[in-house]
Amino acid sequence: MQESLEVPGQFGRLVGYRLIAWREGYAEVALTVGPDHLNRTGVPHGGLLATLIDTACGYSGCYCTVPGNRRRAVTLSLNTQFVGQARAGDILTAVGRATAGGRRIFFTQCEVRDQAGRLIAQGEGVFRYRCGSETPEGEPVAER
Amino acid sequence: MQESLEVPGQFGRLVGYRLIAWREGYAEVALTVGPDHLNRTGVPHGGLLATLIDTACGYSGCYCTVPGNRRRAVTLSLNTQFVGQARAGDILTAVGRATAGGRRIFFTQCEVRDQAGRLIAQGEGVFRYRCGSETPEGEPVAER
Amino acid sequence: MQESLEVPGQFGRLVGYRLIAWREGYAEVALTVGPDHLNRTGVPHGGLLATLIDTACGYSGCYCTVPGNRRRAVTLSLNTQFVGQARAGDILTAVGRATAGGRRIFFTQCEVRDQAGRLIAQGEGVFRYRCGSETPEGEPVAER
Amino acid sequence: MQESLEVPGQFGRLVGYRLIAWREGYAEVALTVGPDHLNRTGVPHGGLLATLIDTACGYSGCYCTVPGNRRRAVTLSLNTQFVGQARAGDILTAVGRATAGGRRIFFTQCEVRDQAGRLIAQGEGVFRYRCGSETPEGEPVAER
Repeated sequence: MQESLEVPGQFGRLVGYRLIAWREGYAEVALTVGPDHLNRTGVPHGGLLATLIDTACGYSGCYCTVPGNRRRAVTLSLNTQFVGQARAGDILTAVGRATAGGRRIFFTQCEVRDQAGRLIAQGEGVFRYRCGSETPEGEPVAER
Repeated sequence: MQESLEVPGQFGRLVGYRLIAWREGYAEVALTVGPDHLNRTGVPHGGLLATLIDTACGYSGCYCTVPGNRRRAVTLSLNTQFVGQARAGDILTAVGRATAGGRRIFFTQCEVRDQAGRLIAQGEGVFRYRCGSETPEGEPVAER
Repeated sequence: MQESLEVPGQFGRLVGYRLIAWREGYAEVALTVGPDHLNRTGVPHGGLLATLIDTACGYSGCYCTVPGNRRRAVTLSLNTQFVGQARAGDILTAVGRATAGGRRIFFTQCEVRDQAGRLIAQGEGVFRYRCGSETPEGEPVAER
Repeated sequence: MQESLEVPGQFGRLVGYRLIAWREGYAEVALTVGPDHLNRTGVPHGGLLATLIDTACGYSGCYCTVPGNRRRAVTLSLNTQFVGQARAGDILTAVGRATAGGRRIFFTQCEVRDQAGRLIAQGEGVFRYRCGSETPEGEPVAER
């Protein structure tokens, strides 16, 4: 199992996704569907798929060219369509791409596919950079 | 803390939401934001809010008039806007309403507010009933 | 037929909608469905309904408190669901509400109903104010 | 100027778009932006772009293998993001693709680009086939 390129946040650890590819304008987030991801009818919860899409889209616009620095963004709008059916045991990969944007706003697209390449979900997100994260250099991670 | 009116599915238990009101065309889903719900920048993950919206919207169209029976639906499309900022410790309530629909498809709207009534997120979902769940009577829960 | 409170732009005149109510955070846009609004299968085109939603949502965040001034915004994201069936001859009213926002971004919701109050479509938009339009006072209309 | 492969419906003629490529799962819709397409601030109306996206997405799922027959669908959900700025005189092309679907529902993606290939808008739609249009053979066009 591929390790995550960045330690996910706490919700990411709860859900169990991993950032497995990341470069300017591009991010891949992977997850192995387990029993904890199923809804009341035994299939992966829509919120799980939305989580993968939000994460891959957000990362795709936040690649940072300075090691140790970070870029941060907030989601303004996230749209998702659930087009196929995943099952427990599937390995899902969400590929996010930043398609356009300026200094403050960026636009993204995402597809989620299973290990056989079947399209499971698609989505789009609009994000706003947080102050200090507008440029590819990002900013130092603040100590707390 | 209000108990859930239905035992949530496994993802619901992982995330920790509760169904606290449910009637024909209406559902409320509540969650207390804890450390596990935060993203890499310390605020609630967009996927968490999408999960609440998907859940409240889905339940709003699946109220069942026969005790012990159940109605099931799959999400076709889920749209979310993140309009405010929630924090750890907040109690979020997602109110879902079924606004229209026919025998197979139903449409919903949702607002997520914090304990002070501030709008945190809004969204809309389109759902399809699974076979056997088209009528308010629903169907018996299958043994496995 | 109620006159428009503001002369619509050129696309608005082509399509034929009218701004019939406008105040801070609120706008109503009306249109009588005519033959020119129908698609290849004889019902109102989805793009027509999206146009009404985009217009009502945009106006709802652009009310200006200084007579003769103007506020301008661009749509970042527009989502629409088509929940009912309108017909030629119907009078549609799109009610847009600004639900949240800050200095640069605002969020909206919209419902489109026919003359009998039936819900025909619902939607949500995220908008960005253009430079100079961030405050309720707006800015003078530039001469060209 | 390329002719339309199918005579557009009445709203299509009002707006002025043309269907310039069409095959199973794919459609291209073109439009030259003219003065009539501009909004109150002098740029193409968001509803115009939503119209192109709705049209290209809808056509992409309605290609019919029997000459003279037709397939019809209704939009359930349409999402659009406006990522770039078009101008009067631009030739916009909306490329719609059916990405998944079953007998009754199909899912689509769309990108709108200008003559220089710049991304102007992106979107996604969910559609439902009308009765009689579920198969690629479609059905005869009814006389009226």
